[in-house]
Amino acid sequence: MKAAVVHSFSEPLRIEDVPKPTPGEGEIVVKIEASGLCHTDIHAAHGDWPIKPKLPFIPGHEGVGIVESVGEGVTRVKEGDRVAIPWLGYACGHCKYCVSGWETLCQSQKQTGYILDGAYAEYAKAYADYVGIVPKGVDPFDAAPLTCAGVTTYKAVKMSGARPSSLVAVFGIGGLGHLAMQYAKVAGASVVAVDLVDEKLDLAKQLGADFVINGRKQDPVAEIQKLGGADAAISVAVSPKAFEQAYQSLHPGGTVVFVALPADNYVQIPIFETVLNAIRIQGSIVGTRVDLQEVFDIHASGLTKVMHERRKLDDVNECFHEVESAKAKARLVFEI
Amino acid sequence: MKAAVVHSFSEPLRIEDVPKPTPGEGEIVVKIEASGLCHTDIHAAHGDWPIKPKLPFIPGHEGVGIVESVGEGVTRVKEGDRVAIPWLGYACGHCKYCVSGWETLCQSQKQTGYILDGAYAEYAKAYADYVGIVPKGVDPFDAAPLTCAGVTTYKAVKMSGARPSSLVAVFGIGGLGHLAMQYAKVAGASVVAVDLVDEKLDLAKQLGADFVINGRKQDPVAEIQKLGGADAAISVAVSPKAFEQAYQSLHPGGTVVFVALPADNYVQIPIFETVLNAIRIQGSIVGTRVDLQEVFDIHASGLTKVMHERRKLDDVNECFHEVESAKAKARLVFEI
Amino acid sequence: MKAAVVHSFSEPLRIEDVPKPTPGEGEIVVKIEASGLCHTDIHAAHGDWPIKPKLPFIPGHEGVGIVESVGEGVTRVKEGDRVAIPWLGYACGHCKYCVSGWETLCQSQKQTGYILDGAYAEYAKAYADYVGIVPKGVDPFDAAPLTCAGVTTYKAVKMSGARPSSLVAVFGIGGLGHLAMQYAKVAGASVVAVDLVDEKLDLAKQLGADFVINGRKQDPVAEIQKLGGADAAISVAVSPKAFEQAYQSLHPGGTVVFVALPADNYVQIPIFETVLNAIRIQGSIVGTRVDLQEVFDIHASGLTKVMHERRKLDDVNECFHEVESAKAKARLVFEI
Amino acid sequence: MKAAVVHSFSEPLRIEDVPKPTPGEGEIVVKIEASGLCHTDIHAAHGDWPIKPKLPFIPGHEGVGIVESVGEGVTRVKEGDRVAIPWLGYACGHCKYCVSGWETLCQSQKQTGYILDGAYAEYAKAYADYVGIVPKGVDPFDAAPLTCAGVTTYKAVKMSGARPSSLVAVFGIGGLGHLAMQYAKVAGASVVAVDLVDEKLDLAKQLGADFVINGRKQDPVAEIQKLGGADAAISVAVSPKAFEQAYQSLHPGGTVVFVALPADNYVQIPIFETVLNAIRIQGSIVGTRVDLQEVFDIHASGLTKVMHERRKLDDVNECFHEVESAKAKARLVFEI
Ligand SMILES: [Zn+2]
Ligand SMILES: [Zn+2]
Ligand SMILES: [Zn+2]
Ligand SMILES: [Zn+2]
Ligand SMILES: [Zn+2]
Ligand SMILES: [Zn+2]
Ligand SMILES: [Zn+2]
Ligand SMILES: [Zn+2]
Repeated sequence: MKAAVVHSFSEPLRIEDVPKPTPGEGEIVVKIEASGLCHTDIHAAHGDWPIKPKLPFIPGHEGVGIVESVGEGVTRVKEGDRVAIPWLGYACGHCKYCVSGWETLCQSQKQTGYILDGAYAEYAKAYADYVGIVPKGVDPFDAAPLTCAGVTTYKAVKMSGARPSSLVAVFGIGGLGHLAMQYAKVAGASVVAVDLVDEKLDLAKQLGADFVINGRKQDPVAEIQKLGGADAAISVAVSPKAFEQAYQSLHPGGTVVFVALPADNYVQIPIFETVLNAIRIQGSIVGTRVDLQEVFDIHASGLTKVMHERRKLDDVNECFHEVESAKAKARLVFEI
Repeated sequence: MKAAVVHSFSEPLRIEDVPKPTPGEGEIVVKIEASGLCHTDIHAAHGDWPIKPKLPFIPGHEGVGIVESVGEGVTRVKEGDRVAIPWLGYACGHCKYCVSGWETLCQSQKQTGYILDGAYAEYAKAYADYVGIVPKGVDPFDAAPLTCAGVTTYKAVKMSGARPSSLVAVFGIGGLGHLAMQYAKVAGASVVAVDLVDEKLDLAKQLGADFVINGRKQDPVAEIQKLGGADAAISVAVSPKAFEQAYQSLHPGGTVVFVALPADNYVQIPIFETVLNAIRIQGSIVGTRVDLQEVFDIHASGLTKVMHERRKLDDVNECFHEVESAKAKARLVFEI
Repeated sequence: MKAAVVHSFSEPLRIEDVPKPTPGEGEIVVKIEASGLCHTDIHAAHGDWPIKPKLPFIPGHEGVGIVESVGEGVTRVKEGDRVAIPWLGYACGHCKYCVSGWETLCQSQKQTGYILDGAYAEYAKAYADYVGIVPKGVDPFDAAPLTCAGVTTYKAVKMSGARPSSLVAVFGIGGLGHLAMQYAKVAGASVVAVDLVDEKLDLAKQLGADFVINGRKQDPVAEIQKLGGADAAISVAVSPKAFEQAYQSLHPGGTVVFVALPADNYVQIPIFETVLNAIRIQGSIVGTRVDLQEVFDIHASGLTKVMHERRKLDDVNECFHEVESAKAKARLVFEI
Repeated sequence: MKAAVVHSFSEPLRIEDVPKPTPGEGEIVVKIEASGLCHTDIHAAHGDWPIKPKLPFIPGHEGVGIVESVGEGVTRVKEGDRVAIPWLGYACGHCKYCVSGWETLCQSQKQTGYILDGAYAEYAKAYADYVGIVPKGVDPFDAAPLTCAGVTTYKAVKMSGARPSSLVAVFGIGGLGHLAMQYAKVAGASVVAVDLVDEKLDLAKQLGADFVINGRKQDPVAEIQKLGGADAAISVAVSPKAFEQAYQSLHPGGTVVFVALPADNYVQIPIFETVLNAIRIQGSIVGTRVDLQEVFDIHASGLTKVMHERRKLDDVNECFHEVESAKAKARLVFEI
C-alpha cells in the first residue's frame, strides 16, 4: 500500500509502497478515506519534541475510513463501519487517569502517527476500543479535522467553563480557532474572535462570532476589557504574545486555556495580578473518546462547520510547507 | 485612643493619639484585643502596590476584639460580642461577584487597613455585616492570625482541590504555610512540607506533615516526584523559584495555587508542559465571610493550631523589620 | 393608584385605589408597564402554602417598569431606568446562603407579592439592590415572564448540568416549559419535549425541540429510553406522574430536576433503582440576581422567545381562572 | 478446592469441593486469605433482585489474597502480590461510563460473586485489570471489608460533598455506617451518628463522632436541626424511615445520599420542600478502582479502623442468619 513515511527528522517524507497491516487481537485495519494534517505531524516529522518517534514511521492522527478487517475478539466495530483514528491510539485502561476520565494523561499511552504508525497511508491499523465511531451522515472530510482539531478545541472549551451568557475570547482563527469559537457558541457563550488577518475574521463572523478584533489594528486587551472582560480566553495562536493577551483580556475570576504549542515555549505570568484577580490558567490536551463522540454528535446535529481543503498525499511535503508558512487557509485533508 | 499611623510611605509608623471612631449606620466600633501583623500591612505602609492607600491611615486587618458600640440598624452583632475585622471590610453586595459567592473579587470593595482605617489601634470601626463572628472558646490571639493568614490559606487549599488521599505540597512553612499545611490535613490530604530551615520543618512535623523536605539539602521537585508527584502544590513562599518548584512538583492533571506575593513579580511558565500535562495554575486571594466562619469553626473544633508571638503596638516598626528580614518565627500579634 | 388586592384567601381579588408607595432608604418606586401572572400568585391569593401572606396584600413578582423615584442612598439605578421586580425582593446579604451564591435560600428573605406588596399595581416599591436591570431593546412584555418563569427554568437547566451533546427531556411545555427547553438548547443540549397537547408540541418544535412526544399517544419513558435515556429531565408539569416519568426517562447517572409544585405533593422514589443507577434528584427554586441578569442578557442576544398574551389588570380574576383551568396558552401579562 | 456454592435460591449454601480455576488471558487466580460477607451476597443467594445470578454460583466480592498464577498478557500484578477482588469484576473499558470515570455504571459490567464466581472459596479467578492492589502493611482482614463496605461508603461520602466544616449525619452505624462516618471525618466534616442501639453509638464515639443520637430516645430530625441542619445525610440503614429522617435532617441546599437497599423499596419525597429548599437526593453505588485504591491508601495512612469478626467458611449459613437477624456487631470475614 502507499504511505508517506518519515525516515529522518531532517529530510522530507517519502511516498513509498509499504506492507499493508494486518489486525492482531483487539485490532482493526481501516481503509483510509480522509486523513487530516495536524501541526503535530510536522513536529513529529521534525523530531521537535523531547520524546521523539522511532524512525521510520507513518504520521497522521486524523484518519477517517472504513473498517476493512477486524482481529480476534473485536466486537465494538465491524467491517464496513466508518471510524476515526485519533491521537490517543491506546491507553492502559487501569491507571488512575484511565479510570477517572483522564485517559489523555495516561502515562502508558501510545499516540497514533507517533508511537504507532498513523493514517498518512491507504490503510492504518488501530486498537478497536480506541477509535471514534463516525455517525451516519457525517462527511469523512469533516470527520478528519474533527478527530484532532475538533476534539482538542472542544475539550479546551469544556475546560474553560464556557456556558450560556459567558464571554469567550478566542485568539487565533485558523484550523483550531474556527472550531474553538463554534464550540463556545454551541455552549451558549458570546464569542470575541481575535486574529491578525481580516479574511479570518470574516470567516469568524460567518461562523457566528459576536465580536471580531484585528490585533494589528486594535488592542485586543483594551477592546475586550471594554466589553467587561472575558470569562474565558482560549489561546490557539502559536505565539506567546497571544497567550499574554489572552491572559490580560480576562476579568477577575476568569480562565485562560492554553492549547497551542508555540516554538518559543515560555510565557511570563505576573503573580500579583494572578493572585489578586484569582485567575486560572489551564493547560488542555486533546480529549477522551467520550469527548470525541460528543464532537461527532454535535456535528451530526448540524451545529458545527468544518473548514478544510483537500490535498493529495503525494503533495505531503508541499502541504507541510504550506502549514509552516501559515499560508493554509483551512485544515488540509488528504484524499486517500 | 492610641493608634499606629502611616503618614508617609517612606517613614516609620507613628504611635499617636487619634480620635476614637463612632459607628455610623450599619457600623460598629470594636475594642481591639489582638491585632495581627500581615505582610500586606508592610506593603501598605510602604506604598508598594499600584493602588496606594490615602495618607494618613491606620493599618491592620487581623483585628479581634469586643463590640463596644453599634450604629443604627445593626442587628447582626451586639455589644459584648467578640468579632474579627478582616481584609474585606466592605463589598457592594449586588455585583456579579458579590451575588455569586466571590465577594473577594468585588470591584467596589474597601479593604481594612488600606482603604478603611484598620486595627493597629485601641478601637476600630467596621461594617457590621462584614466582620467575622469569633466562636466561644477561641482565643483572640489565635483568632487574629486566622482572620487573614488563616482564611487566605484555607481558601487556597479549597481552590487546590485537596481531598482525602491527595498529596499536597506546601512551599514555605511560616505564618501562612503552617496553616496551609494544617488545612490540607484537615481536608484529608497527605502533606509534603518544603522549607529552607530545619526548625520550620520540625514545626511542620509536629503539625502533622507526612513528609518534610529541606530545599537546601534536597531537590524538592525530585523528592516529590519520587512520591508520585503532587496533586496540588501551594506556594506561600515569597520567591518565584518556589513557584516554579511548586509547578514542577505536580503530576499530570495537578494544580498549583499561587498565594504569596513576591517582590519579583514574574514567573516563567512552560507552555508545552502545561498543555501536555493539563496543569492548572490558580491564583487565590483571601476568602469570603463564609470561608472565614469555616476557619473559625474548624479551629473551635480543635483541628488547627496557630503559631503566634505577642508584641507591643509601640514596637510596630521593629516588628516590621523582624518580618521583612524573615526573622519572625511565627505570626506576630499586637496586644492592644 | 390602581391595584389588585387580596383581602381574603377565599374571595376574588379587588381592583382598588390604594396609596402610591414612596421609596425609603435604599428603595425605589417603579411605574409598572408589564406585570406577569405566575401560578405562585394564585397560591398566594388562596393561602395555599404553609406560611401565608399577611392580608391584605398586592400579588405580582414579574413586574417590569421604569424607575420613577429613588430613596436615599440609592446609586445602583436611577430615574428612567427600566427594571424588573422579582420574587426575591430582599435577602439579608450576610448569611451563609447570601455569601455563597445561594441568596435564594436565605432564611431572612422577603418575597415580592407575598411578604412585600407586589406588581399587580400601577406602582410598586422595591429594594434597589434586588431588582433586575432590563437591557436596552428588551420588550417589557418579554421581560416580565423572564423575571420569574425565565429565571426559574434557567436555574433548573443550570442545576440539571445540561451542556453540549446532552439529551434533556422537558415535561410540560407551558409558561415554564417553553422557556426551559429553550435554555437547554442554548446550553447546547438536544431536547425532548413532552406534553399532552399537540398544539404545545408544535410550539416546542418551532422553538427548536429535537424530539416531541405526546404523552397521551406514546409512552414518554419508552420513547426517551429508545433515544438512549436522558442525561437530565426537568419536570415543570404539575402532576406527580410527570415527575415519575421524568425520573424513569433518565439513563444511569442522570439527573431529574423538580421545579413545578403539584397540589398532590408526594412522589414515590424507588431506592434500589436510585442507588444502582446513581440517579440525582435535584430540587430547584427561582434564581439569584446574577441568574436573572444572565436570563436578560441571553434574551437580549436574541437566543430566546417568550410566549405571552396581554391582559387587563381589571380581568385579574378571570385570568386566575384561565390559568387554574389550564386554558392559558402562554404566560399572561397584565398591561398596566 | 473448597467453596461455598449456591445451588438454589431457596436452599442453604453447600460447602463443596469444586475444581480450582485456571487463569485465561488477562486473568489471575488468587489464593484467598480473607473473604468478607456483604449483605448483597445474601440477596444474591436468595435471588432477591430483578436480574438473578445463573445457578450454581459462588458468592463473595470482598476477597483478599495472594496472586497464585497469572494468565497470558498480565503485567499489572504478579505472583505473590496481595490483591482484592471487588464487586466490579469487569467493565467494558470503552463505553461512555467507563471512559468518563463512571465504570460502576457500565452496562456491560460483570459483578463478582454474582455473574462471575466469587471469593467464598480457597481460590478465585479475576480480571487482572479490575482487582485492587492491597498496600504493604494492610491486614487482609481489614482489606476485605474495605473492598466493598469501604469503597461503597467512601464513594457515598464523596458524592455527599462532605468537606471541612460540613455537618454530616450518618444513619445506621453498622458494617457500612462505621466506615461512612470515618470517611466523613477524614474529609474534615463533623459527624452526627444516628442509630437505635447504644452500643453502636458508643462505637461511633470511639471512632470520632462529634454527636450521637439514639433514634429510640430522641428525634434525630429535631436534634440535627438544632445543630443547624446537616449539609449532608447518608442513609446506610435498611429502612425507608431512616431515608425520610435523613432527608428531613438537612438544611436548605443539603444533600441526602441513598446507599442502603431496604426490602421495602419506596420512599415518599415531598416535592414542595425539595423545590423550595433546593434539596439534592443522590443515589450512590460502590466505587471505581481509583476509589478503592484511595480507600486502601487512606487505611494504610492509619486514618480508618475496620470493625470485623472472623468466621469459618463452613459456618456460612449461620453467618447469613446472623446478618439477616441484625445480630452481627461488625463485618463478618471468612478465614479461608
Ligand atoms: Zn493533532
Ligand atoms: Zn492509563
Ligand atoms: Zn493579610
Ligand atoms: Zn460587589
Ligand atoms: Zn413565580
Ligand atoms: Zn441571607
Ligand atoms: Zn457488597
Ligand atoms: Zn463500560
